[in-house]
Amino acid sequence: MEVPARLAAVAERLAASLGPHAVLSDPAELRTYECDGLARYAVSPGLVVLPESTEQVAEVVRACRDADLPFVARGSGTGLSGGALPRSDGVLIVTSRMRRILEVDLDAECAVVEPGVINLAISREVSPAHYHYAPDPSSQQICSIGGNVAENSGGAHCLKYGFTAHHVTGLEIVTPDGDVVWLGAGKCRQSTGYDLLGVFIGSEGTLGIATKVVVRLVQTQQCVETILAAFPDMASAGEAVSAIIAAGITPAAIEMMDALSIEAAEQAVDCRYPDGAGAVLIVELDGPADDVAAELAAVTARCEQSGAFELRRAADEYERGEMWKGRKSAFAAVGRISPDYIVQDGVIPRTALPEVLADIAALSERTGIRVANVFHAGDGNLHPLVLYDESVPGQGDAAEEVSGAILDLCIGHGGSITGEHGVGVDKAKHLPKMFTADDLDTMQLVRCAFDPAQRCNPGKVFPTPRLCGEVPRRGTTPHPAQAAGLAEAF
Amino acid sequence: MEVPARLAAVAERLAASLGPHAVLSDPAELRTYECDGLARYAVSPGLVVLPESTEQVAEVVRACRDADLPFVARGSGTGLSGGALPRSDGVLIVTSRMRRILEVDLDAECAVVEPGVINLAISREVSPAHYHYAPDPSSQQICSIGGNVAENSGGAHCLKYGFTAHHVTGLEIVTPDGDVVWLGAGKCRQSTGYDLLGVFIGSEGTLGIATKVVVRLVQTQQCVETILAAFPDMASAGEAVSAIIAAGITPAAIEMMDALSIEAAEQAVDCRYPDGAGAVLIVELDGPADDVAAELAAVTARCEQSGAFELRRAADEYERGEMWKGRKSAFAAVGRISPDYIVQDGVIPRTALPEVLADIAALSERTGIRVANVFHAGDGNLHPLVLYDESVPGQGDAAEEVSGAILDLCIGHGGSITGEHGVGVDKAKHLPKMFTADDLDTMQLVRCAFDPAQRCNPGKVFPTPRLCGEVPRRGTTPHPAQAAGLAEAF
Repeated sequence: MEVPARLAAVAERLAASLGPHAVLSDPAELRTYECDGLARYAVSPGLVVLPESTEQVAEVVRACRDADLPFVARGSGTGLSGGALPRSDGVLIVTSRMRRILEVDLDAECAVVEPGVINLAISREVSPAHYHYAPDPSSQQICSIGGNVAENSGGAHCLKYGFTAHHVTGLEIVTPDGDVVWLGAGKCRQSTGYDLLGVFIGSEGTLGIATKVVVRLVQTQQCVETILAAFPDMASAGEAVSAIIAAGITPAAIEMMDALSIEAAEQAVDCRYPDGAGAVLIVELDGPADDVAAELAAVTARCEQSGAFELRRAADEYERGEMWKGRKSAFAAVGRISPDYIVQDGVIPRTALPEVLADIAALSERTGIRVANVFHAGDGNLHPLVLYDESVPGQGDAAEEVSGAILDLCIGHGGSITGEHGVGVDKAKHLPKMFTADDLDTMQLVRCAFDPAQRCNPGKVFPTPRLCGEVPRRGTTPHPAQAAGLAEAF
Repeated sequence: MEVPARLAAVAERLAASLGPHAVLSDPAELRTYECDGLARYAVSPGLVVLPESTEQVAEVVRACRDADLPFVARGSGTGLSGGALPRSDGVLIVTSRMRRILEVDLDAECAVVEPGVINLAISREVSPAHYHYAPDPSSQQICSIGGNVAENSGGAHCLKYGFTAHHVTGLEIVTPDGDVVWLGAGKCRQSTGYDLLGVFIGSEGTLGIATKVVVRLVQTQQCVETILAAFPDMASAGEAVSAIIAAGITPAAIEMMDALSIEAAEQAVDCRYPDGAGAVLIVELDGPADDVAAELAAVTARCEQSGAFELRRAADEYERGEMWKGRKSAFAAVGRISPDYIVQDGVIPRTALPEVLADIAALSERTGIRVANVFHAGDGNLHPLVLYDESVPGQGDAAEEVSGAILDLCIGHGGSITGEHGVGVDKAKHLPKMFTADDLDTMQLVRCAFDPAQRCNPGKVFPTPRLCGEVPRRGTTPHPAQAAGLAEAF
């Protein structure tokens, strides 16, 4: 049978088993789902299904298996690497109707939630008991936990608290065959047997679909202090970051913005950051009151020593919100100063920050493409915003080139092509710059273990799909970083 | 060719390529390696090889592949679950000649080391710069990093600092085919593509052999305070642990010992814990001086409120060492009060502590088998010591039964059959109590991805080896915890 006929047959089967309201096949409805947060890629899905339970997800996956159709899972569709880009020849499985918080166990400091639950909904649920769910992507008001698991999402406070992988202790998944299995230790923090959580979390939907997520709940700290420090330039702000970390302090967050992103934020949300700042740092400290007071003094001193010309301390929640407003709006704000832009995501060792920033500035100078820098400075996760105007012939391509060159800079400094947005469709082509064919082949062998037929989110992450039956091609090619003479041992 | 002939051929090939000093085949020499820290199991290896480099490890593995012989990697042989138990029909690959610290990068806060490097050697190397390697198994003076990676080793300070998995950011491994690949992000904390580190760390030597390990270095805290609190009974000590955690304090360590283990420690090392203690807690706090002072006051208050009748604070490093001496000697000390004993290792949710301790006491009462309890109380990792006398007919079996029943208690409370000692040969039979056939099959599919021929440490972890060619047998059997009605969602 041809694809359209198989899709129709699956639609009929699932309408019968899940109910007609669970299946969308009208072209206008399908178009709603044609892209995720990365709108540069758009494909209308062959079929959309909205299951309401694990058993229904398994039934959809089994229907795809029986009809040999690919499928893609989608949460809220906020991803920035096209990881939830649909297939026109396949089924898009949307988890937005799986929004139950199934269990909250404050004694064990965990909750069990369905994948469609919104990130912030967990914190809202447990905040009366002074708990919260720690990973806080900028999209936390709308993004889903299932998507966070797929992307191993981070956020501003991951410097101190870690990523999704550090806060999920168990997963119920539907495998690409339609079976239901548990991965990880569940409510217990230590796992036994293979710890398959690590490979599943961040596998971008290619190893199965999470249907229940056991998340850690973290006690909300008694005291929070937020300061905004304005510096004449990026170099002095970078110096302050290094000095703070070197002093043995781990702030909950250290965010940095450059002059261009500050300008964008001012225009968008009137955040009133200090005039004339070449860079600002937002440093947040949390913990018991005495600890925070001591750290606040230490951080203030480091900022002053590094050249901060103005320091503001948030007096209350309102002022804290105002300080964060500029940072949190930065991506969208750039739209005010540039008709088009690319949100890039790369990682460098924190110590390489000054050098990489200088290189990005030189790149921008040379190409005439403006780059605004916003980043999680504490862990070296850059979010350069590459500004361009699609209506100017050649600028789109030039921006793409600059964007790629920034990734090359990250790799060249021993970093990574993505910190928290994932590889998806967008960066698959860059993956061989970081990994040898052998490294990638090892990953793909694991993929073949979970999904030999490659029906589960195919075309994402890996530049070239692997034929699961073929003999491994691993040889002994050197690691790219080693080949480049970057590290003797690494 | 028969096995002995194949072993002889491999011995000849490796003596030629690695040099004769790298190959041991004399039966007396082989016997040295017949067991690891779990001496109940002993098998003389077919051949022992001591490689000195990644390339040599790869060469040994390729020789095994070509001769179709199984192989087992061994570090210092301190494991407690028989994970490094040799095969009489195979090759034991001993990493003790791979002891170079290849690189220390204090800016990036990491080091690259060979697998035979002793855990404590890393901390010694970087201690002048006020850094250390955090995971601290009791055997840290002799155990190797390669073994720590295989077992995902923990230690007393893992409550605050996490396990091996949280401190290893990259691995060079030799795959079961003899290829060399890198897993993980290396010096950068965030990984791209599949994060295969998580599944490799703790896979107990069944997925390959780590040949280079990138470890995080942690700044040594400015201030450390250690207190010893004596309680009339375990229940009040347990209450103090809950109160400390509930106060939002994460001590570097909270260790608990019961009356029987205190008695053993007194006899062995004269640790002079307070008279009449039914339980002692050792609580260690670290951080900036002001923070620690505040936490010390809070912990002291909680202990007093929970019924501590004596509190001692270590005045200096010497007194700190004295306090720890009793705890660190506990396992060995039990040898003073019992001719034979089993060191058990299980995990329970911390909140189940009082109930599980009562159940263990009842079990001991019923069977007449004494159980000494020593544990990492903060994270619910129990180390019950089951005492018996092999020379009394039936006692060995009875002790085995009690030991198994304790694991059942852990599982029954939603815990795990191992916290940090691994499954190895010893606990493979218990694994199906925690996982469904489908769960185990998913793990074994990953094993087959790495090692389709099952040559790499076969017979460990999994109760039944999987034929890698067979069709997956996963069905939809309920999770044991769910079947037992323990959790609706989990």
